[in-house]
Amino acid sequence: MCLESYHLIGLIAGASSNLLFFSRSVGADDVSIKIKYCGVCYADVVWTKNLHGDSMYPVVPGHEIVGVVTTTGPNAGGFKVGDHVGVGTFVNSCMECQHCNDLREIFCPKSAYTFNSIDSDGTVTKGGYSSYIVVHQRFCYKIPDGYPLDKAAPLLCAGITVYSPMMRHKMNQPGKSLGVIGLGGLGHMAVKFGKAFGLKVTVFSTSESKKEEALNILKADKFVLSSDKQQMMSLTQSLDFIVDTASGDHPFDPYMDLLKVEGVLILVGFPSEIKLSPRSLNLGARSIAGSITGGTKETQEMLHFCAANKVYPEIEVISISYVNEALQRLIDRDVKYRFVIDVGNSLN
Amino acid sequence: MCLESYHLIGLIAGASSNLLFFSRSVGADDVSIKIKYCGVCYADVVWTKNLHGDSMYPVVPGHEIVGVVTTTGPNAGGFKVGDHVGVGTFVNSCMECQHCNDLREIFCPKSAYTFNSIDSDGTVTKGGYSSYIVVHQRFCYKIPDGYPLDKAAPLLCAGITVYSPMMRHKMNQPGKSLGVIGLGGLGHMAVKFGKAFGLKVTVFSTSESKKEEALNILKADKFVLSSDKQQMMSLTQSLDFIVDTASGDHPFDPYMDLLKVEGVLILVGFPSEIKLSPRSLNLGARSIAGSITGGTKETQEMLHFCAANKVYPEIEVISISYVNEALQRLIDRDVKYRFVIDVGNSLN
Repeated sequence: MCLESYHLIGLIAGASSNLLFFSRSVGADDVSIKIKYCGVCYADVVWTKNLHGDSMYPVVPGHEIVGVVTTTGPNAGGFKVGDHVGVGTFVNSCMECQHCNDLREIFCPKSAYTFNSIDSDGTVTKGGYSSYIVVHQRFCYKIPDGYPLDKAAPLLCAGITVYSPMMRHKMNQPGKSLGVIGLGGLGHMAVKFGKAFGLKVTVFSTSESKKEEALNILKADKFVLSSDKQQMMSLTQSLDFIVDTASGDHPFDPYMDLLKVEGVLILVGFPSEIKLSPRSLNLGARSIAGSITGGTKETQEMLHFCAANKVYPEIEVISISYVNEALQRLIDRDVKYRFVIDVGNSLN
Repeated sequence: MCLESYHLIGLIAGASSNLLFFSRSVGADDVSIKIKYCGVCYADVVWTKNLHGDSMYPVVPGHEIVGVVTTTGPNAGGFKVGDHVGVGTFVNSCMECQHCNDLREIFCPKSAYTFNSIDSDGTVTKGGYSSYIVVHQRFCYKIPDGYPLDKAAPLLCAGITVYSPMMRHKMNQPGKSLGVIGLGGLGHMAVKFGKAFGLKVTVFSTSESKKEEALNILKADKFVLSSDKQQMMSLTQSLDFIVDTASGDHPFDPYMDLLKVEGVLILVGFPSEIKLSPRSLNLGARSIAGSITGGTKETQEMLHFCAANKVYPEIEVISISYVNEALQRLIDRDVKYRFVIDVGNSLN
């Protein structure tokens, strides 16, 4: 065991300054990681601000973690010191149930989130706004050689959250048409995956200001202002799939009408409620399906896919001292398209 | 052309007595059918009472039609005089589009319903509360030898409406678990198909009075009173699929909780609204999918499946003179489980 893997310096929500605290020692199956970058996800807002009423302070947020291996337990032979690795939204599970056997640990009833979750040893998990993290090797991913570490961070939550349902619902069929609702961290990754899969991608946004970026930076094929009824109606029954990343409340029927027969709308956001007419589903045999992130096998596959297909998130690298402002800008939807904290150079 | 195929005596909604009217002559691709039985579907209530505001009187309802071929057009060589045949909810389509080429004519934008729909010749289609009907051979199904004609009637709407989504969503996997919400014409067929597929079937009903029949007559494996929270919770994450046949408004979240990971709830009813929490979909990657009836290929397959597997609807045969009372009993949900009009013996 190496001392540095035992000490974590975390940015704790609600604390007036950074505090020193301790993580577990490096177990036989564990990997200790010196954190280099951590993406800023809306989940960080939710639990630092206790929006769900279940925050367990001190909260150390962050579940888009990228770093370098500093120590490995004797059973963690898949990794070696110096490896570029990532940690996503989950850090533990029972490792015995059917879901775990299928490497879809996210569905394991005993899975533990990367932060603000009770781990199997009874401690509260602490996330990536921190210098170090120790995780079971199962929840540690290899970042492919040459993939920029800062850009890898958002893949661990935003990336896999849209990649997983897109694969599950067979959206990787070139020539098919995809609609993407919302253009934040998740939405912009859905556009990038859609293009990498060879889909025709239409972006729906409430803000005309996103048009140029959607078309020129993200390379979407079409941009539709969702408040423009005529534009919306012109797309009736034209889309095979929709990925809905909007977390704010919004109507569903106008989007369902744009789906072809047997079209699927994937919901990855958490609006307060889903409300729609049965006709929107019944008449075209359409579906709405939900999803949250992906299992370990799929996450590793996605990382390889992104490296092989040059899929890179759009990021704004920030210092740890900027994080409160970044969280506020995230709330204000003022981010293009993911903040990534330069932990290695700004948290000491 | 045979004169009798040209004269239809229909029971017309709103008329004080039966009226004589005329159908089209038997075209080259047509089959003329002497109607023997016609099932009573809730659609008959909807359009005779103009519940959707689009009824075109005189309405001749009925789209679960079974009879005997009396005349065939020169191109309708697949049928011969005396054949036992059925007609379901659709009688026309463009026959050129992708959906028609796939024999899934229900999705063709030019499809014509069996009654209260504008046909390609501009006339309003008239249904099975009638002595005769003339249809294009494409929308005429063979009733397998030996299958009781009266029991065949409900298959043409209630049967195919649940069979089609059950097949589309791969519910025909022995050993899987199915929930059925509502025990009317559609629900009781979902139970029967579920058992024929080798599924473990749980019936959900708001009425304890349905328990004995569900278990003893329909052979469901389990009955759950949906208002009993404890019974409901005991089934959390236990079902692979749910077929929701309830047309009245009801909550969706309590049923979604009963689905396993990636479970699917199929909606075939038309409540006024679907309302649920995103968590119900997202956390277990669950789906809600809608459906209406099936195409011609699947309808014929279902008829063969029912004959081969001895799947018979539960019916109450009535005289045409009882039909207004039957419609009221249907509104009152007082039917076990489908009224079938003995057209051959009671409509002259």
